Amino acid sequence: MDDRTGFEVSGVRIGGNEPVIIAGPCTVESEAQTMVVARAVKAAGVKILRGGAFKPRTSPYSFQGLGEEGLKILKAAKDETGLLIQTEVMDTSQIDLICKYADILQVGTRNMMNYSLLKALGEVKVPVMLKRGFMATVEEFMLAAEYITKGGNERLFLCERGIRSFDDSTRFTLDLAAVALIKKMSSLPIIIDPSHATGRADLIIPMSLAALAAGADGVMVEVHPRPEKAMCDGLQSLSLEMFEEFMAKMRSMIEFLASQRREL
Amino acid sequence: MDDRTGFEVSGVRIGGNEPVIIAGPCTVESEAQTMVVARAVKAAGVKILRGGAFKPRTSPYSFQGLGEEGLKILKAAKDETGLLIQTEVMDTSQIDLICKYADILQVGTRNMMNYSLLKALGEVKVPVMLKRGFMATVEEFMLAAEYITKGGNERLFLCERGIRSFDDSTRFTLDLAAVALIKKMSSLPIIIDPSHATGRADLIIPMSLAALAAGADGVMVEVHPRPEKAMCDGLQSLSLEMFEEFMAKMRSMIEFLASQRREL
Amino acid sequence: MDDRTGFEVSGVRIGGNEPVIIAGPCTVESEAQTMVVARAVKAAGVKILRGGAFKPRTSPYSFQGLGEEGLKILKAAKDETGLLIQTEVMDTSQIDLICKYADILQVGTRNMMNYSLLKALGEVKVPVMLKRGFMATVEEFMLAAEYITKGGNERLFLCERGIRSFDDSTRFTLDLAAVALIKKMSSLPIIIDPSHATGRADLIIPMSLAALAAGADGVMVEVHPRPEKAMCDGLQSLSLEMFEEFMAKMRSMIEFLASQRREL
Amino acid sequence: MDDRTGFEVSGVRIGGNEPVIIAGPCTVESEAQTMVVARAVKAAGVKILRGGAFKPRTSPYSFQGLGEEGLKILKAAKDETGLLIQTEVMDTSQIDLICKYADILQVGTRNMMNYSLLKALGEVKVPVMLKRGFMATVEEFMLAAEYITKGGNERLFLCERGIRSFDDSTRFTLDLAAVALIKKMSSLPIIIDPSHATGRADLIIPMSLAALAAGADGVMVEVHPRPEKAMCDGLQSLSLEMFEEFMAKMRSMIEFLASQRREL
Repeated sequence: MDDRTGFEVSGVRIGGNEPVIIAGPCTVESEAQTMVVARAVKAAGVKILRGGAFKPRTSPYSFQGLGEEGLKILKAAKDETGLLIQTEVMDTSQIDLICKYADILQVGTRNMMNYSLLKALGEVKVPVMLKRGFMATVEEFMLAAEYITKGGNERLFLCERGIRSFDDSTRFTLDLAAVALIKKMSSLPIIIDPSHATGRADLIIPMSLAALAAGADGVMVEVHPRPEKAMCDGLQSLSLEMFEEFMAKMRSMIEFLASQRREL
Repeated sequence: MDDRTGFEVSGVRIGGNEPVIIAGPCTVESEAQTMVVARAVKAAGVKILRGGAFKPRTSPYSFQGLGEEGLKILKAAKDETGLLIQTEVMDTSQIDLICKYADILQVGTRNMMNYSLLKALGEVKVPVMLKRGFMATVEEFMLAAEYITKGGNERLFLCERGIRSFDDSTRFTLDLAAVALIKKMSSLPIIIDPSHATGRADLIIPMSLAALAAGADGVMVEVHPRPEKAMCDGLQSLSLEMFEEFMAKMRSMIEFLASQRREL
Repeated sequence: MDDRTGFEVSGVRIGGNEPVIIAGPCTVESEAQTMVVARAVKAAGVKILRGGAFKPRTSPYSFQGLGEEGLKILKAAKDETGLLIQTEVMDTSQIDLICKYADILQVGTRNMMNYSLLKALGEVKVPVMLKRGFMATVEEFMLAAEYITKGGNERLFLCERGIRSFDDSTRFTLDLAAVALIKKMSSLPIIIDPSHATGRADLIIPMSLAALAAGADGVMVEVHPRPEKAMCDGLQSLSLEMFEEFMAKMRSMIEFLASQRREL
Repeated sequence: MDDRTGFEVSGVRIGGNEPVIIAGPCTVESEAQTMVVARAVKAAGVKILRGGAFKPRTSPYSFQGLGEEGLKILKAAKDETGLLIQTEVMDTSQIDLICKYADILQVGTRNMMNYSLLKALGEVKVPVMLKRGFMATVEEFMLAAEYITKGGNERLFLCERGIRSFDDSTRFTLDLAAVALIKKMSSLPIIIDPSHATGRADLIIPMSLAALAAGADGVMVEVHPRPEKAMCDGLQSLSLEMFEEFMAKMRSMIEFLASQRREL
């Protein structure tokens, strides 16, 4: 069984048979931090580096990201490692700037219903990853995706990153059934973000394995050289050591799922 | 007991002792429709006309509003009636245009976490009404407000418009306890939008009375000359006849609450 | 306009034109505590005393109530003050025992879907107050009520006590629109419990005023002589002093609403 | 790595290394229907048959189950096939009766906070499966379990069956991160019920695979010979044909996970 859905970004396939792994720091804090992570994820076989330069923060008094300085650091990481760069765009006015540095634009959960932004992203040539709003239904998520594809940008993939529920024993509630459901409704690739969904590094591996087993097209995780010192979301970042374990388990599961497909 | 909080917009007080009523069509559909409503709300003593020109719609295939054409219709309504104009801004790129026509800028529920927009609105001279995100906690709502006041725009008021819950017997769940709580935490005026909160015209009067009794600084309602023909949200719009009943009941409650204050 | 719905319990009307106030301690802790509260609520004109003897607690290690000893204390309070007694029944096996002491049986939020209990309560002669499950839709609430009335017990009233949402800035989210909606769907009286809904004593007055303005048939509040020493839910209990202020404001609102009805 | 947690029920292990599969009809409708399913699940290697005789239904006008007649049918299925029987108990008064027929007692989601029932089940000798309340936090779920184990009944296992969220694109929101979290907090075995969680037969296989990958101790599914004719929950029942596919995929995943464990 060969699955021809998905698309390529500079030679890296998103969607289709082989799940994609995207990894990197939540926030670009410095060149040193970014380079350590970039080299580690590259060494592990990852092809896309994520990192935030513009950060949507709940409080105006929290660190808001390095801005263009952060984009330049990501570009430097790309120049050294060859990794593709994925970073968040928060506003129509940032699109041109970010397109100069990034290979994939990310729409964050808080902007899933920022329809002005979605419309504008329908008209760029750069691939987009659209995160599900943490309070968006599956139907609203699919309609938000339509805002982008309707504009002509077909290189779109989705990301389930947890929804808000009454229970905060995990940071959000990862909705894996939505992933399985979307696989039945749409040809758009869909990955998960277990770091933001659970808010706990120790749940990232089980949830990532579960997502692949449920049919997800990939996983995006946060990695930090010293999670306890991270400027943002340290509790949910994998250390470099945990990231190695993560990658080993991902590889086994990916291989198992490929063997299952071959048997059909 | 005299309450000196609040501020003035061209002579109309928002916050303080006297609750404010804001009324108008959900969407500006035509000059005729807007004028009929504007005259009716003016005749009833209302001083602020609401109406949407740029509409954030869940589906890209739904009517997206008349845009600048709608702003011109609102301006014409202002020229004839003297009503102040309140309308929604969805994106930083629209601010300059809308400021040419509107007296109050409205941030919709889907944009409460559009921090780029909030920052930009902190720097304009026009008053802003910030709606609570339907997925935002009270704390997140108050921090979103900080994005605007931190920029120097002190003429800000809030609007509770219902949060999303598991029960859709009303469209959203109007959170009046949040209104009472915010009155204890903040000096920012806060009103409610029972039309969007409940999605049912027949619940607007009881919820508006309840909000005033709970201490809200006002109510914003949708009025349409022929709700059954509305292009958007007809089920939750008051007809002109219901609007008269609404205003009569509001006046009685406002008078009762004023008499209670005088006794203290 | 005369509203003939509702019913009588030993001469006290529930439903109909005059809102009912039910007050008392969350939990019967001792005869002394109960008597102090009973005398205070009686003096303020209240006719129904609430108090828990069997307590459904989240943890098996929390105080579970005094059981039959608590029922005897409530009975003693009734003998002295003439107040009617309302207390919670958790299980079919407790019904006979509690009926010996109580005038009104209360089904708690955690038991709204305990259909065996509801069926059994359809067959007793004692009036029942059914609390909405904090996870129940309005439709499920109305169907749970049907379990009781179908059995032949027509003296049933409802209580909205807050639903669970993503926001815990109040303990639960008081759903006043559900109260207004149920008033349109059903002839069953419905009151609110602002103590459990908000979890904050300082929100009880505004929410109670709001509920009456929205058409609720009454309010049930927790009162404790020393809230800071309460064995359960102290933060949400009114002190005796706050209870006096509460009653004064209730009386004014009740009078205002009666004058409004007379004008129609 | 050998995992010694879990316990045995008449030779069938629940918890520990080998995931358990529990299958059967939602509701016992007739001897014929039950026997067809029992033989099919037996043939597929399943050792525990589930089936409801007492059904907690939202409406009093819905089919309430066959009661003791249903228990007798389950017993007949056991006599023929040797399958263990698991069925729901709704109330303390039913415990003795059901213990005469069943090997495992099930507490449904609506009764997770029926603390009288939980206490009583702490004192029986029969193993219990406790379902998570669809509006219960993980903490509340663990404390409900304590009600049973505190009474001395150590043969308890848990079942995640979906929580209620704002999104009804699936019937409930399966919370697999809660499963992974509970595996870190507790030695109690935990399985999932994808039938009730998703409400869709076509999501049962992906969610079951995901649950095993996340570390769940098993899966419970509904099977019906003719789902479209089921008296209850037909849309979420596997047909006999889908059940075969389900079992084949479960076996492959179980074998893969066992091979992973052996490598450690």
